This record gives sequence, structure tokens and C-alpha cells, in this order.
Amino acid sequence: MADSPQITVTRRLLFNAAHRVHNPALSDEENQRLFGKCNNPNWHGHNYTLDVSVRGTVDPRTGYVIDLSVLKRIVQDRVVERVDHRNFNLDVDFMKGVIPTSENIVVGMWRELAPAVQPGTLVKLVLWETSNNYVEYTGE
Amino acid sequence: MADSPQITVTRRLLFNAAHRVHNPALSDEENQRLFGKCNNPNWHGHNYTLDVSVRGTVDPRTGYVIDLSVLKRIVQDRVVERVDHRNFNLDVDFMKGVIPTSENIVVGMWRELAPAVQPGTLVKLVLWETSNNYVEYTGE
Amino acid sequence: MADSPQITVTRRLLFNAAHRVHNPALSDEENQRLFGKCNNPNWHGHNYTLDVSVRGTVDPRTGYVIDLSVLKRIVQDRVVERVDHRNFNLDVDFMKGVIPTSENIVVGMWRELAPAVQPGTLVKLVLWETSNNYVEYTGE
Amino acid sequence: MADSPQITVTRRLLFNAAHRVHNPALSDEENQRLFGKCNNPNWHGHNYTLDVSVRGTVDPRTGYVIDLSVLKRIVQDRVVERVDHRNFNLDVDFMKGVIPTSENIVVGMWRELAPAVQPGTLVKLVLWETSNNYVEYTGE
Amino acid sequence: MADSPQITVTRRLLFNAAHRVHNPALSDEENQRLFGKCNNPNWHGHNYTLDVSVRGTVDPRTGYVIDLSVLKRIVQDRVVERVDHRNFNLDVDFMKGVIPTSENIVVGMWRELAPAVQPGTLVKLVLWETSNNYVEYTGE
Amino acid sequence: MADSPQITVTRRLLFNAAHRVHNPALSDEENQRLFGKCNNPNWHGHNYTLDVSVRGTVDPRTGYVIDLSVLKRIVQDRVVERVDHRNFNLDVDFMKGVIPTSENIVVGMWRELAPAVQPGTLVKLVLWETSNNYVEYTGE
Repeated sequence: MADSPQITVTRRLLFNAAHRVHNPALSDEENQRLFGKCNNPNWHGHNYTLDVSVRGTVDPRTGYVIDLSVLKRIVQDRVVERVDHRNFNLDVDFMKGVIPTSENIVVGMWRELAPAVQPGTLVKLVLWETSNNYVEYTGE
Repeated sequence: MADSPQITVTRRLLFNAAHRVHNPALSDEENQRLFGKCNNPNWHGHNYTLDVSVRGTVDPRTGYVIDLSVLKRIVQDRVVERVDHRNFNLDVDFMKGVIPTSENIVVGMWRELAPAVQPGTLVKLVLWETSNNYVEYTGE
Repeated sequence: MADSPQITVTRRLLFNAAHRVHNPALSDEENQRLFGKCNNPNWHGHNYTLDVSVRGTVDPRTGYVIDLSVLKRIVQDRVVERVDHRNFNLDVDFMKGVIPTSENIVVGMWRELAPAVQPGTLVKLVLWETSNNYVEYTGE
Repeated sequence: MADSPQITVTRRLLFNAAHRVHNPALSDEENQRLFGKCNNPNWHGHNYTLDVSVRGTVDPRTGYVIDLSVLKRIVQDRVVERVDHRNFNLDVDFMKGVIPTSENIVVGMWRELAPAVQPGTLVKLVLWETSNNYVEYTGE
Repeated sequence: MADSPQITVTRRLLFNAAHRVHNPALSDEENQRLFGKCNNPNWHGHNYTLDVSVRGTVDPRTGYVIDLSVLKRIVQDRVVERVDHRNFNLDVDFMKGVIPTSENIVVGMWRELAPAVQPGTLVKLVLWETSNNYVEYTGE
Repeated sequence: MADSPQITVTRRLLFNAAHRVHNPALSDEENQRLFGKCNNPNWHGHNYTLDVSVRGTVDPRTGYVIDLSVLKRIVQDRVVERVDHRNFNLDVDFMKGVIPTSENIVVGMWRELAPAVQPGTLVKLVLWETSNNYVEYTGE
């Protein structure tokens, strides 16, 4: 056990959004074949759950790695308010030019959050799309 | 305790859909004022959870009020396949002419399911829109 | 609002058991046709969740309808210890002669618990068999 | 199915609080005997979950029984902000003179909320103290 | 952040099964002493939750590491259909000769799944036996 | 896949406690500014969830890394019984001299548990303070 323990703290946030899994470079038939009902042209949507994990040492003055109300505010400002009750294909600037799968969403969010979560280091994002599937990204 | 106990059995099903809370009889400004971010013209969406409750006596031959695999099939055919990965405003015939709030969705689903869940009687639908809110309807 | 409010308190308990949905009065073929994979002769099992609800007025001396540690003890002694890590078809005396569906289990448990939950009145049992289905019984 | 369906809508809110189950009219020994570890003089606490259920007809202009953001604001102002991160024995005026069990908390909250949830009628409060126990009150 | 981000995607599946924790090389007394109620000769059972995690780069044509409907089908065919509503001691060929604890189940499932989850690499299996305990295996 | 697979087993336990996030070396004003409502002098509390993860090889005699009933007993004796229904600031000896944030609690618990979880090695503690935030410690 180290002198300055490294702790990972996680804040969970929720948001709701619409999307369509669609590759505009492919034909409609190919999109339908690849993505099935997820390709519905009239969209569908999800209640997403996002877990943001920050690692660092404990500040002896506060007992915190990072104040979770500060972390919540960063995540709200940087990603949640830009995607909540929005359409990932049409409304979200950091998703321009990529298919809005959970894989691509989590990478886009990493780019927005990694520079901003001081003190501490962003070490993991987990994005649940439904209660049966989720993606994780650790910056590698 | 009665001779023929009345039991309520519930089957939970999940689906994902897009919607926009919008009243076409009102101006855009009035819609925005009434519904806020839920009125986003580019839609948003949810992972809905639907609990379908059927009441009846226990068939001594099977020990069931209703075979849950039969109930699941009825609910899949009658409502889930018509709304899953769809848009409540554009794609769902039983929602034509009403604002697709959870209140109106659950009433629309009741109309589709109530005549179909034999044996037993449909006694409650619960529809969760997010993990923080749900509506119930008992046919009254 | 009444002078002596009627409150319902619920204690949740968990147990694990094996069962086979099988009617010994029917042929093997008929059992297979009626119950499918639930009829597997080598059994299957579940993590059951049982919610026991007791209603009554609040004792001003304790602020309780019923002390939940007392209620837990009653439910442990009367039902959980007789079914936990057991086989509903072979090991549970109060299930003798009935098919061990959730419907019949909850009625059997009601018989064991209703006389025992003083002070207060047993008003509901809810038994979850999986995270997707449950049964309720209110004594009617 | 009625012409003006009656729907129940529920909003879930969370709060954290400390309490001690203690009857000041009794001796320390009697309190210890009655309440065990829940009587710890240095307090303990919980993450409470409160479900507030309001019943009414659907307003055809909005599709809502009650706007859930309005209901959330009412519950925040009337009860959550008065109890969150507080001590039920020392800090909460509507709990003065009663033992802060879940039974008494839910009755106190009912008094604060029932006059305030227009449109619609408060029909049920459910208060989870832990993931294993909860109380319900319907105003009777 | 790498040019070709490595993402881990997880699909959750549920199944129900019976088992008995029993070492046939030991006496009945020794089995009873070691395993207690988990050694019940008439079996008991669980609702298992299995999380299958696959890691890889994102295919720019689909936005996917692996299509989750393909992953679901692989897991259904390779493990779930062989264990669901079955008895781990009697019915499951890949468990022959080992005690059906969660530790051994997850290793057995790894052997079945690791060669099959292309594109991507199987990086973790998590198996929940109850809501209070789970095991993880990463192939090491 | 190794000859002696390394498996991680996790046991989840729950407890309830009060605390106040407060640094006695700072002024009341500074504490209030740093910690906000978490600094309430009359305390607040939480239902904590603790996941204890132990890694090791599988004992061929039992099929276990560690008997989970043994692990549960160790965690109960070493940490849960010392914190459950207690006050982290006043009642818990292993928290003397540190601010009782989740970060410091999980490090304190690691010190108590790491030497005790034989067979196997303590590899992770996860402590949920609410359903929206948790901390992890792996001994580094």
C-alpha cells in the first residue's frame, strides 16, 4: 500500500437522446442490412447512463481526489447539456462526421472531458445504452 | 383467504423509441414554453420499461394464471413490435392524433392489450420513461 | 388524512431454490408441451425476491407499524429457511401436492405468514422469479 | 375503459439524511432494548428514495396529468430541500415531536405535499429507507 | 488518445440454472462440512447474469467493435442455450468433471467463447450468481 | 488461457452510517465553503455498498478461490460491524484523524482487510456512497 494512495472516483450522470445508426456513405439497402431496426429513418432513442472515472491522490485538505460537485458540473457543461434531449446525428457538434454508435459517442466525449477534469486524470468512461449493453473507453 | 385465490402476474418488457412532446394545435413558442427541452424538433428518446399485469385464478392443470411466454408473445405482437426502435409521433398508428406523453402511450397500449390477454384480465400497465418517473393505468 | 394513519411497511428478502414446472397427473409429452424448458427433469432454479407487506397503525411508543427486525425473523423462520437452497418439488412441505409455479408458491407462503405477522395485517406478497416477472397476492 | 382515463404519475427523488430512532419519553435502556443499533446516540443515516404519486385526468392540451418538472419542483421545495443532508431529529421542523421512523416521515411528508400537488391528487407516497425495506402511505 | 481507439463493448445475458456444489471425490460429510446448504442433494438454483466483454478498434464502416446482435447470437449459441433452464452438474457437457462453482463456470464459458467472438478479442467475463456476489475472468 | 486460471471473486455488503465532511484544521467558514451541505454540523448519512474483490487460483478441492461465506465473515468482522449504524467521525477507530470522505474510508478499509483475506489477494475495493457516485481502490 502506497504512501499516497491512488484512488479512482466515479460520477454517474443520465441523459436521454435520439439517434439513428446510419452510414451516409452507404446505400439505404446496405444500411438496412447492416443496422436493421437501429437504422429506422424516423430515429429511435435511449436513456443513456454515463460513468466518468477520475484518478488521483487524495488532497489532505479536503479528503477528495476531486470534488464530485465540480466533476458533475464539468461533465454537465462539457457533454450532458450538449446531448440531453437532443439528436446525436443532427444536434451534437462533437459527433459530426461519425456514426453515432456508443463506441463513437464515448470517444467523442473523451475528447471533450479529458482536458477538463483537473485535479485528477480521466481514466475511464463507461456508457450504458440500455440495461443490457455498454461500452468502455480508457483513452488507449 | 379465498378458495380460488386471485393472483396478479406481471411480465416486464423493454423497448426503445424516439418522441417529441409537441401539440400541433399550438404555436412553436407555446410548445417550447409548455414542454421545454422535451419539445426538441429533432426528437429525443428513451429506454421504456413496460410492466403488464394480468389477474385471474390459478388453473390447477398448469399452476398458471396465464402462461408468461404466451403473455410475452401477446405484448410483443400487440405493442412492442409496433413501437420498438420507432418514433411515437411518426411511426405508431395507435398514437395518431395524441401527444406521445407516457400518459397517452399507456392508454393507447391498454386499448391494444385489454381485449387480448385471455385467460385473465388486464388490471394494470406501468410504463417507466426513465429511472425517475413512471405512469400507471388500471383501466378506469 | 386520518387521525390514525394506516401505513404499509414492506420487508424484502432473497432466497435461491430449484424447481421443475411439472404436473404429475399428465404425461411427459403433455408436460413438455405445456411447460417447455421449465419442465427440464433435471431441474432449474432462480434467485427469488420476496416482498412482505404488513399494514397497520403506527405505535406511538416506537414509531413502527411492526419492528422490521421482528418481521424479518418471522419471514425467515416461517418461509425463507424452509425454501432457501432447497427444491420446491421435493423439499418444501407447504408445497406438497401443487405445481411449484410462482402463483402457487405465493399462496403457500401467504398461508404460513398471514397468521404470524402481528402487530399489523399481512396485505400483500410479491414474489419476483426473475427480473422480468413477478406475482402478487393480497389474500383475496 | 373510461372516456377520461384516470392516470397515476410518479416522480422519484433521492435524498440523504441522518437520524436516530429514539423515544425521549423512555429511558436509555428501554430505547436500546426497543431499537438496538438504530438507537446509536451518534446517529446513522440513509440514502432515501421517495416516490410521489399523483392521480388525475390527462389535460388534452399537454398530454400530462401534471408536468413532472412542476411536480419535481414542488417536492424539492416542500420536502427534499428541508431534509436532504440534514438530521431528521434535529433539523426538520415538520418532524418535531415524533420519532423519525420511515412511518412517521412519510406521514409528515404527506401533510406537506397533499395540499400542493395541483393539478391532480396525491394518492401515494413510497419511501425506501434501504434497498430492503420501504413504507407506503395513501392518506387513509 | 490513440489514432485507433481501443474500445471494450459488453453484452449482458441472463439465464436460470440449477446446481449443487459437491465434490464427488469427498465423503458426504466432508461435502456437507465444506459447502453447507449449497450442497443440498436435491439441488438449488440461480438467476445468473453474464457480462461478455469484447475489445477492439472501431470499424469505420459500421461504428462498431462488433455488432452486438452478432455477439448476442454467439453467446446464446455457445453457452446460454446449453445452460439455460438446465442443471450444471448433470446437463452441461463443458462442465463435466469440475465442481459447478461460479469460478469453474466462468472458466468453462471462456473456453467456449474466446475462439468465437471475432471481430474483437474476448477480454472479460463477469458472472453474477446472486445480486451479492460475482466472479470475473480475464483469461490469465 | 493459463493452466491455473486467476479468478477474481467479489462479495457485496451493505451498511448504513452517518458522517460529516469536515476538516477540523480549517475554520467553519472555510469548511462551509469547501463542503457545502455535506458539512452540516448535525450530520447526514448514507446507505453504503461495499464490493470486496479477492483474486487467486481455484482450489480444485472446493472449486472456490475463497469460500464466500468465509469472506463475508471476514468483512463483517473487520469493517462492517465497526461502521454499520455508526458515525464515521465519532465512532470508527480506523478513521481517526482523517476526513471521512469515501476516498479515505476505502483506504482505511483496505488496511483492515488486506492482511485478512486469505486465501487469495485483496485486489479491489469499491465503495458506493449513493447510486450516483463510487470510489475504487486497488492498493496502489
